[in-house]
Order: sequence, then C-alpha cells, then structure tokens
Amino acid sequence: MEYYSQKAAGITPYTPGERPVKPLVRINTNENPYPPSPDALAAACGVAALRLYSDPDAMEVRQAVVSAEKATGVALGAENVFVGNGSDDVLSMCYQAFFPPVGAEDKPLLIPDISYSFYPVFANLYGVAYQEEPLDEKFAVVSAGYLRPNAGVVFANPNAPTGIYKPLEEIVPILEYCLHRSVVVVDEAYIAFGGVSAATLLSRFPNLLVVRTLSKSHALAGLRVGYALGHPDLIEGLKRIKDSVNPYAVDYIAQKTAAAALRDVAYCAGITARILATRERVAQRLREMGFEVLPSSTNFLFVTHEGVDARRLYEGLADGGIWVRYFDMPRIKNFIRVSVGTDEEMDVFLERLARLLVPYGREASKKNKKIHILNTES
Amino acid sequence: MEYYSQKAAGITPYTPGERPVKPLVRINTNENPYPPSPDALAAACGVAALRLYSDPDAMEVRQAVVSAEKATGVALGAENVFVGNGSDDVLSMCYQAFFPPVGAEDKPLLIPDISYSFYPVFANLYGVAYQEEPLDEKFAVVSAGYLRPNAGVVFANPNAPTGIYKPLEEIVPILEYCLHRSVVVVDEAYIAFGGVSAATLLSRFPNLLVVRTLSKSHALAGLRVGYALGHPDLIEGLKRIKDSVNPYAVDYIAQKTAAAALRDVAYCAGITARILATRERVAQRLREMGFEVLPSSTNFLFVTHEGVDARRLYEGLADGGIWVRYFDMPRIKNFIRVSVGTDEEMDVFLERLARLLVPYGREASKKNKKIHILNTES
Repeated sequence: MEYYSQKAAGITPYTPGERPVKPLVRINTNENPYPPSPDALAAACGVAALRLYSDPDAMEVRQAVVSAEKATGVALGAENVFVGNGSDDVLSMCYQAFFPPVGAEDKPLLIPDISYSFYPVFANLYGVAYQEEPLDEKFAVVSAGYLRPNAGVVFANPNAPTGIYKPLEEIVPILEYCLHRSVVVVDEAYIAFGGVSAATLLSRFPNLLVVRTLSKSHALAGLRVGYALGHPDLIEGLKRIKDSVNPYAVDYIAQKTAAAALRDVAYCAGITARILATRERVAQRLREMGFEVLPSSTNFLFVTHEGVDARRLYEGLADGGIWVRYFDMPRIKNFIRVSVGTDEEMDVFLERLARLLVPYGREASKKNKKIHILNTES
Repeated sequence: MEYYSQKAAGITPYTPGERPVKPLVRINTNENPYPPSPDALAAACGVAALRLYSDPDAMEVRQAVVSAEKATGVALGAENVFVGNGSDDVLSMCYQAFFPPVGAEDKPLLIPDISYSFYPVFANLYGVAYQEEPLDEKFAVVSAGYLRPNAGVVFANPNAPTGIYKPLEEIVPILEYCLHRSVVVVDEAYIAFGGVSAATLLSRFPNLLVVRTLSKSHALAGLRVGYALGHPDLIEGLKRIKDSVNPYAVDYIAQKTAAAALRDVAYCAGITARILATRERVAQRLREMGFEVLPSSTNFLFVTHEGVDARRLYEGLADGGIWVRYFDMPRIKNFIRVSVGTDEEMDVFLERLARLLVPYGREASKKNKKIHILNTES
C-alpha cells in the first residue's frame, strides 16, 4: 500500500449488493425481472462499427431522451441532456462539476441521512464536505432542512432504500432557496415506478439537475447508461468534466441499445405495469404477515416486522438461497429491502418467508413481542 | 456558469480527433481499419442478461487477459489485472489512486513534453502538479530526465503521436529509481504494433503499472475496454477508486465482447500483420515523396516534410475529405499524424497527397526550400 495516494488510502468505497454464485432468487439489487426491449437487444448485434470510437456526445441517445420526454409533455432539446456510463458516473461528475471541495467554500453539501449510500462516498472521494439531513419519523425527506446555506443538494426521489416519493410541491421550496446559490440534484432512478418527475420543473429552475438511469425501468442494469436533464449550462459543466476524464465514456453498443430501449416506450410501460401489479400483491401479502411495508413508488419494498429481527430474517432467507438486501445502519437496521422480481420469484420468497415466521406463530403477526427469529436452515 | 466548481470552470478538457460528418477517408484517430473478431461481435448478440448488473470485478475479461499474457510468456493471475471503461478511465484512476494532489507532496508527476495529450488534462483535473520532460531531438523519451524526485511517472510506449518505441533496458533505470518511491505508468496502447511489453518487468517491479486498451489492436475503439497490469496492491488501489466512482464501470456486453476478442488471438494477429504491412508500404512511399517518417512501432505514422507547411497539408487533405490529425503544439507543428487504414484508404490518401505536392515539384522532394503549399481545392 506504500504507493497509495491519501485519497486511495482514506476512502471507504461503495458496497454493492452481494452476488451469490448460485442464488435461488436474487432480489437484492433492484434489477428488472424482465428482459430488455427486443429492439434494444437487436441493436447490440453484429455492430462492426465497434472498431470506431463511439460518439462522445451520444447524440442518438440524447435525441431518444428528448422524444421520450416530449411524450410525457416535457419539452427539452438535446442541449438539456447529458449521457453517462450509468447514473453513478453522472452523479460522480455532478460532484466534480458543481460541488466545491473542502476549503474552497465553507458550506456543506446536503444529503439525506438515509438514502442511496453512494452520495457520501462521492463526497469523500472528491473532498466535498457534507452534512446529512435526517428523514422524519415516517422516513420522508424534510424540505425545511435544506433551506440553509449549502454547497449543493442531492437526494433521490423516490428515495432509496425507503421507496418513498416526495411530492414536487415540497421540492420547489428547496429549488427556490438554492436558486443562484447551488445546484440541486434529484436522482430519479426509480421515477418510472411512481410519482411525477421533477423534469416538469426544469423550465423554472436552471439550478435543477434530474438524474435518471436505464438500469431499472428499462431493464438495462448491465448496459450502464444513465443521463441528466438540466439547463444547458449545467449540461456543459458535466461535459467539461467528462471530456477531462473519459470523452468516449459511453460505448457504441450501449448508445445503440439505450436509444432503442428509450424509443420502445410501449414495452417499457408494459413491464413496468407488471412490476407494479406484483409489487402491490406482495405488499398486501406482507402486510397480512404482520410486516410494516413503507409506501413504495419504486420497484422494491422496504419492510420491517416489529416482532422479528431483520438481520436474522435476511440471513435465514440467504440460507435458503434467497437474497434480499440488508443495511446495517442506524434507524433502518430492522428493515430488509426486497426488489420486485417476477411473480414466480416473489412466490418463492413469500413461501420461504412464511416458513421463517412459523416459529413466531401468532406472536409475530400480532407485533406484540420483540423476539429473535430462529435460524431455520432447511 | 454561476454554478460551476473551480475545477469545472478552470479545466481545459481533452480534445478528441475531429469527427467529420461524411469523410472520404478518416485516418485521424488511430482506429483499426478492420472489424473486430467475429467471435467478439457474436458475443454482443441478444444477451437478455443485460437486465442484470455486470460483474463489477470483470472476472471473465481478467481471465482472458491472463491467458493472452501466458501465451506471450508472461505469468500473471487475475489479481494482477484491473479492467476499466477504456484505458482513459484506467489512466484517470491511476492519477487518483497514486498521484498526490498539489500540497500533499511537493514533488511533481513527470510526463513527456510530447505524448498523449490527456496526461496533463488528468493532472489538472485532479490537482496533481506535473512537469514535462522534453523528448530529445530525435523525439525519444530520455530516461535520465525521470531519475529525480517525483510523485509518479507516466509515459506511452510506443509513444504517441511520435510512434517511437523505447527499449525496455532504458525503462528499467526509471523503475529502479522510483522503486519504493512512486508508481511508473507505462501506457502501452500501441504495443501490439511493435516492441516488447514492459509486462515482462512486472515480476521485478511492484511499482510498475502497464496500461493497455482494446481500442487499437483488437479493433474495439467503440467498446471502451482497457486494462492495467501490475502488483496486486496497485490493482487493489485502482479498485478502491473504481468502487468509489462507478463499481459497475464496464458493462455486460463490453465484458463478453472484450473477453471473446482477447481469446481470438489468431484473428488479432492476422489484422495486426495486415496493418504492419500497410504501414511499411505507406512509410516507404512517403519517404519517396520527400517526407521524413519517424520510425513507427504503432498503427500510425508521424510525418513531416521540410518543404511543406503541415497545417496547410492537413487542411488540403481535409478539403478533399481525408482526415488526418494535426497538433498545433511546439516542436510538432510541422507534422501530421496518419492512422494506418486499409490499403484502399491509404491509396486514396497517397494519391491526394501527391496532388497536393505537385505545386512544389522537385523542390519539395529535395527538401531544400521552405515554401508554403497552395490550397489546391479540387
């Protein structure tokens, strides 16, 4: 380690969800259970033009985003769209382009205390001071906390891992406060599964960046394409960073595939509808089993059971080959996050879950006792 | 621009080669003129697994690199290989992982004054102080210049845009000097086209990182896959940065395609042999036309003509739809860099070039007069 920079030695990298070798059901990383659009898959085939550098401006993808937005009533041009190698890449560039490192300015970046766990990782990597604003007791992002001097604001809407959507009228005061002061990044990774996009506010707020991904709604987690929507000045700022790191960040196949997927609006709507139907069915069943299920506007459910230790539940599920996500963090250590898979996958999950709850009997469903789950490895 | 960080406002991004809309011949970005391996193209087809996140450790690619190295007599394990989203991405992470920003240490990063123009861009982005060591009068990297206190060393071998290869015995003193002091990054983007790889030195030097790309030799510029070879501690340092920026940086198709291309050693050798044959034929012809052609170990030629203004030549070629690269930089402003295309493309280039030289008659080929080329737009 003698050669590491202070940065490399000091950072704590992001921890992705586990990747078990032979899972029975893996519903721990909020992937889409359905394949991508057939058009998207066809677009990746036999492209001999791979020998050439991809378009550094990703113009075909940007045009496809513009068309998709237009269909929802949001009028944008390609100059309002920035495309990156996944939304993590886009977020990373937001930090570099808009958030001053410690020393350059005294005000902190503001992020929720419970949200996408990558936000503080970026801050630490780029030396950006940050403060965490606590969610309220119902796990909602509280606007008032962000109405104070800041170097920028980042939050996810709907939020992760809670799944809760924050109405736009609550976001407007944050944007108004930050206008001419700082950039507000709204990470809409899950917006296709619930809620109205902040993209409808872009014409009013030149300090707003809406960040999206094709990983969830478009079933393309493996493709690595994300994008940002915003004022052309902000888009240009992101481009300045990209062109100083990796001008051809998005590969040729990814561009072709992403554009085709974005154009296949009907397919995307179809798989989204199926996921929402499954989500509601599973949420209902979980409530019947005594779980508290946070209201989800996403493709996952964040659930807790008063009578059951979530870590033990997570371990019990994993022992049976069913992988959900557990976060050993304050306030949420008794929750598990369950991605919405296919109906078949969710039935396997629910069945196993029911078996794990058997030892609690009616106690558990009555939520009247704090007891520990047994490890019922089968 | 009111929202830009100092970094975003102050940097000068890298300038990629031009991308004319309808070029007749585009030989300005050192792409491979031949398609990628058919196996590689097949690997990209119809992969429904795109809905899942790609392997953040890119293990299949790393294994393919290990096998390819083994075939050349270099024994490595997967723990010696880091895979990134193109070699630019890998280089960017080297800067973050191993080179201290200004203030953290007084010693500068050392880079050649004429080399890949991205090296100073990374340094400026990440606040790393650097000094440029001049190439000698024959455009060779001079080892002696690097034997002084430094925060790190980066150079390309073969170098770009000169095309000149530096023998390993001249690199060893730099590695010895820097041992237990700093990391030496040898950027081998073009090594497949000439010279012995520094990978043969890895077992002796835990401070050596060899960086490669599939963009040139494997005809996959549009795929964005590059990799680094080095001691496991250095590989781990790069991974720490990657996992703090973009853990799934290399997409699923890119991994499948890259691994297939790396395994198809025979195909790669075949197209490389064709490129070398074309290169030597074109170099010979250029010399006959009065050009000085630097000895190339790459898939491009860096050429100058004593009697002809290179910028005018570049413009005259572009007017005819033939795009080569021109660098308006000290010492090399009278050179053009010509990627080796197919034989047919190079014949079109040579023919147009000959026509541009007509006004000079025998004067030009005698190299005895500095005159300006006429703009002979046809």
